[in-house]
Amino acid sequence: MERTLTAKGTATRERIVAGAAARIREHGVAATTLDDIRERTATSKSQLFHYFPGGREELLLAVARFEADRVLADQQPQLGALTSWEAWEGWREKVLARYRAQGRACPLGGLLTQVGRATPGAQAVVAELMARWEAELAAGVVAMQRGGFVDTGLDAAREAAALLAGLQGGVLMLITTGRLTYLQAALDVGLERLRRAGGERPVP
Amino acid sequence: MERTLTAKGTATRERIVAGAAARIREHGVAATTLDDIRERTATSKSQLFHYFPGGREELLLAVARFEADRVLADQQPQLGALTSWEAWEGWREKVLARYRAQGRACPLGGLLTQVGRATPGAQAVVAELMARWEAELAAGVVAMQRGGFVDTGLDAAREAAALLAGLQGGVLMLITTGRLTYLQAALDVGLERLRRAGGERPVP
Repeated sequence: MERTLTAKGTATRERIVAGAAARIREHGVAATTLDDIRERTATSKSQLFHYFPGGREELLLAVARFEADRVLADQQPQLGALTSWEAWEGWREKVLARYRAQGRACPLGGLLTQVGRATPGAQAVVAELMARWEAELAAGVVAMQRGGFVDTGLDAAREAAALLAGLQGGVLMLITTGRLTYLQAALDVGLERLRRAGGERPVP
Repeated sequence: MERTLTAKGTATRERIVAGAAARIREHGVAATTLDDIRERTATSKSQLFHYFPGGREELLLAVARFEADRVLADQQPQLGALTSWEAWEGWREKVLARYRAQGRACPLGGLLTQVGRATPGAQAVVAELMARWEAELAAGVVAMQRGGFVDTGLDAAREAAALLAGLQGGVLMLITTGRLTYLQAALDVGLERLRRAGGERPVP
């Protein structure tokens, strides 16, 4: 679906996607038509068709990718450089602040449900987001091990997978119950575990 | 919606719900009509209306409750008596076995999506399931603390919330990626944390 665009074309496309994302954040995806997006982004029908020949579904997938990028961007610069406990604590704060502000609404989830979660396009967006997220966390654990802050006996990939699971479950529980407790517990317990990982291992 | 039924009435209602659940597990909720359920459970139209005056939605909610009960039942007897490391390990095995068998399909999730996740009925089913699950895990942590196996300095409620978040996120990642790694990592890391919780706490 992606074609080669000129620099100007790329900028226009990005402007449409950002405008559509803002419109959808305000009114919800179900209540946003292509006409609403044209109006919001001052785009003609032929322009919209030029950039999104696949129509509404292609545009919504582009908005989903935009929102997925934003999930990670909201955790930067810490997520990309988890090389000290300060960075991990700062990252924890950013994650909590993002989801505290978001509450029970999930812009990305709404978009993917609308496109159809089982469609290859929607699955690719989620798979890529999770893979990047997991890789950043794993790189952070490895960096802390290299720095001598975390026990090198820990499997960094497994620690990252567990952290990501706790985080995703915490967000799911926030959406389900309206409470941030689970996300907070998952992050706090996960970080404490890394901090303690150099310690003695008592036989129970 | 619940009315007082005779013992026989209750048994008939339960039989219809169990039959509907089996039909839906085999064919999916979208491909299951009230007529399919009548046929499967050998029930007349007037009988079905007698037990589920609210129609398809009321029946689907009853099936959702049935599936929610089954989520917890599949983790018994260990979940209800997490009083030794053997019980915790046995519980971990049961959770993994259940979700390994289930794979990417989620019977409860499909039902709730069909009823409408935002409806009060669907939210009540999920909220009750999560509350019971969390209470069982918290009771388990407290039991281990009383037995001297887990540091009493740990906040049992927070540990249970973190475990539940990791578990939910692990299941979500299984549905998203098809891989059990995340659920396994969340459970293993969570149990290791409890086992180590009596140990020395090094200052990082």
